[in-house]
Amino acid sequence: MYAFTSVFANPVGSPIRELFKYLSEPGMISFAGGYPASDLFDIDGLAAAQARAFAQPTRCLQYGPTDGLADLKMQLVALMASRGAPCTAESLLVTTGSQQGLDLLLRVMVSPGDVVVTEQPAYPATLQALRLQQAKIVTVPVDAHGLDVAHLDTLLREGRIAIPKLLYTVPTFANPTGATLSRERRIDLLKLALEYRFIIVEDDPYGDLRFAGDAVPTLLGLTAEVPGSRDWVVHFSSLSKIVAPGLRVGWTVAPPEIARRCVVAKQTVDLCSVPWTQAVAAEYLADGALTRHLPKITEAYRHKCNALCEALRETLGDTIAFHAPQGGMFVWARLAAMKTSDLLPHAIAEKVLFVPGTAFFAEQADAASLRLSFAAPGISAIEEGVARLARAMQATGKTVP
Amino acid sequence: MYAFTSVFANPVGSPIRELFKYLSEPGMISFAGGYPASDLFDIDGLAAAQARAFAQPTRCLQYGPTDGLADLKMQLVALMASRGAPCTAESLLVTTGSQQGLDLLLRVMVSPGDVVVTEQPAYPATLQALRLQQAKIVTVPVDAHGLDVAHLDTLLREGRIAIPKLLYTVPTFANPTGATLSRERRIDLLKLALEYRFIIVEDDPYGDLRFAGDAVPTLLGLTAEVPGSRDWVVHFSSLSKIVAPGLRVGWTVAPPEIARRCVVAKQTVDLCSVPWTQAVAAEYLADGALTRHLPKITEAYRHKCNALCEALRETLGDTIAFHAPQGGMFVWARLAAMKTSDLLPHAIAEKVLFVPGTAFFAEQADAASLRLSFAAPGISAIEEGVARLARAMQATGKTVP
Repeated sequence: MYAFTSVFANPVGSPIRELFKYLSEPGMISFAGGYPASDLFDIDGLAAAQARAFAQPTRCLQYGPTDGLADLKMQLVALMASRGAPCTAESLLVTTGSQQGLDLLLRVMVSPGDVVVTEQPAYPATLQALRLQQAKIVTVPVDAHGLDVAHLDTLLREGRIAIPKLLYTVPTFANPTGATLSRERRIDLLKLALEYRFIIVEDDPYGDLRFAGDAVPTLLGLTAEVPGSRDWVVHFSSLSKIVAPGLRVGWTVAPPEIARRCVVAKQTVDLCSVPWTQAVAAEYLADGALTRHLPKITEAYRHKCNALCEALRETLGDTIAFHAPQGGMFVWARLAAMKTSDLLPHAIAEKVLFVPGTAFFAEQADAASLRLSFAAPGISAIEEGVARLARAMQATGKTVP
Repeated sequence: MYAFTSVFANPVGSPIRELFKYLSEPGMISFAGGYPASDLFDIDGLAAAQARAFAQPTRCLQYGPTDGLADLKMQLVALMASRGAPCTAESLLVTTGSQQGLDLLLRVMVSPGDVVVTEQPAYPATLQALRLQQAKIVTVPVDAHGLDVAHLDTLLREGRIAIPKLLYTVPTFANPTGATLSRERRIDLLKLALEYRFIIVEDDPYGDLRFAGDAVPTLLGLTAEVPGSRDWVVHFSSLSKIVAPGLRVGWTVAPPEIARRCVVAKQTVDLCSVPWTQAVAAEYLADGALTRHLPKITEAYRHKCNALCEALRETLGDTIAFHAPQGGMFVWARLAAMKTSDLLPHAIAEKVLFVPGTAFFAEQADAASLRLSFAAPGISAIEEGVARLARAMQATGKTVP
């Protein structure tokens, strides 16, 4: 009856959100969500920040600047400097989660048919956002050290792909693979972007969640070592995974000309992000609460990740392959001889959830892959969840539920 | 250096936001903003709602459903019923202000070149959103009784305009004109939409701010009297003007097929609006606080509107023409013999701000018009502001600053 735009003629919802209906089933253990652990939220710290923020109620309750509350921007500029990626307030805008930052950037920069390179596998909401903007998605594979930059170099040098407008990457503790791009590859990627004049979109929600190994600088920070490359990096970050998603506080650091256009787009899209939670975030950061609380999260995630990896090794042995990540929230795995989409109904019957890897592929999906998040469940739930996975795998070999 | 999309090649920021830089000047009296009065916020009521909401911290701090927190949706469904426009939860989605509702709807329904009818004059952010989606904007004039529906009927019947995809209207206390569409015209508009199969986009942020005259049902409510027309109405509302903009709680009521697609778009755009302020809003509404507090706002606005209209009549007499509105936040006026863009620099010199009417026209701007908001300034500031306007008008007749 209605004439929808072409991309909404047959809309496909998020494949991960489709699994949410099972979450409420009693006794379900979920490795599926990209949710941080609720029981690790700094409730006292946030309540205190809320009290300080609401001491100036108008700042919380009135419309705020489109680019973000000045106090919060100042704190985020300081946070970026502490991460080795200093930036100006002018180049930073606050968004409703970093997801909105991507949406704004694509609307400002990507015309239908423009080529955008993504990692393969990649975060499904990014693939959806690219489809919504009618980008032509070109994928480059990921290995244990992140994006295969040498392969991208070859593709570009041999003219096998068009020069992209953007390249999207989660270089640190990627979603879904958990992989971290090596320092060498980061430098090479910056040089490629500079040479071919495409923009690297560095999405960095997980970088602070390191619990093993040595830190690798962000691409934004490394631009200092590749003169001229700063013009070709747009950086997203977020408090969702290190403080709480419910704040919906993300931010974009971009070359000023790009940042300015994203702000103009945001005027039209939602006028401003929620000033109230921006004020809470500003107070939380100003107090040093993030620095105090973050080790509690990373320490818990370290234990959870270890528990998951050990249980997978002990219980599933050679039937599963994976690299243990050094941070973040995800273990990416491959089953030896099974489609994970066949496994899923048996897993649901056994009351355990995961995301089949096909959700993360724009093309040529690896049917044997799956993503397991260790962030939300507790240690004993993780161990029990893996036992259930094992039972589901046995059942898959025999019958279809 | 960068290749932006066509609509961002030469971006034009909001003409109203351009004026904001003058707001911080000491002693400035502003009739310019579309901001509600900060001193009328129900700070105690919202602090109490916040305390109740944060008693369940995970609901505030974790990701929420894309279509909105279930508790809030239940309250908004009840609010819509109390306004005489009952709807199902399935047809309602919560957005980051109603501005985001419009953005989502346009992305779902408007392809480049599609015709969209707007009132003339109209809210500039709507015109910007339409340009961003590359709609072809067709304007229909507004008089003291709102959109000239008979004129639209003629345009359609004589084939002088293409059948639009959408028609956007603020039928009650419009921004900028303050006009309210009569009941008869509403019925006629619903019949037209049904006949020509276009969607009426009813933006209703001000409807509850009535301080004079008799209530007129919403277009959504009146669909009950025009069988079949319900399929052709999308309704936006918001807590921004009746509770606080800083919550950024707006909502869309749409036919389920449209609502579902808006939710899919929102998954990609920002995953979910801020759960924290949604929870606060749910508690605020559940407590009946809106019903208790709203009369304080409307009563204050009644006094402010009267003060502005009286001062304009007494001080400016025949040099200004306007209709006193029965609610909302705006007086739309016309100067007898002066361009308001010429007046503005003199007004700024006299420390008083308004928005020149040209900001609200998609075409053929009325250069003598201006919008005055009475919501934010106090009574004495309103009186002093009009005195300053009079001095600025005198100065405009003599010199250029």
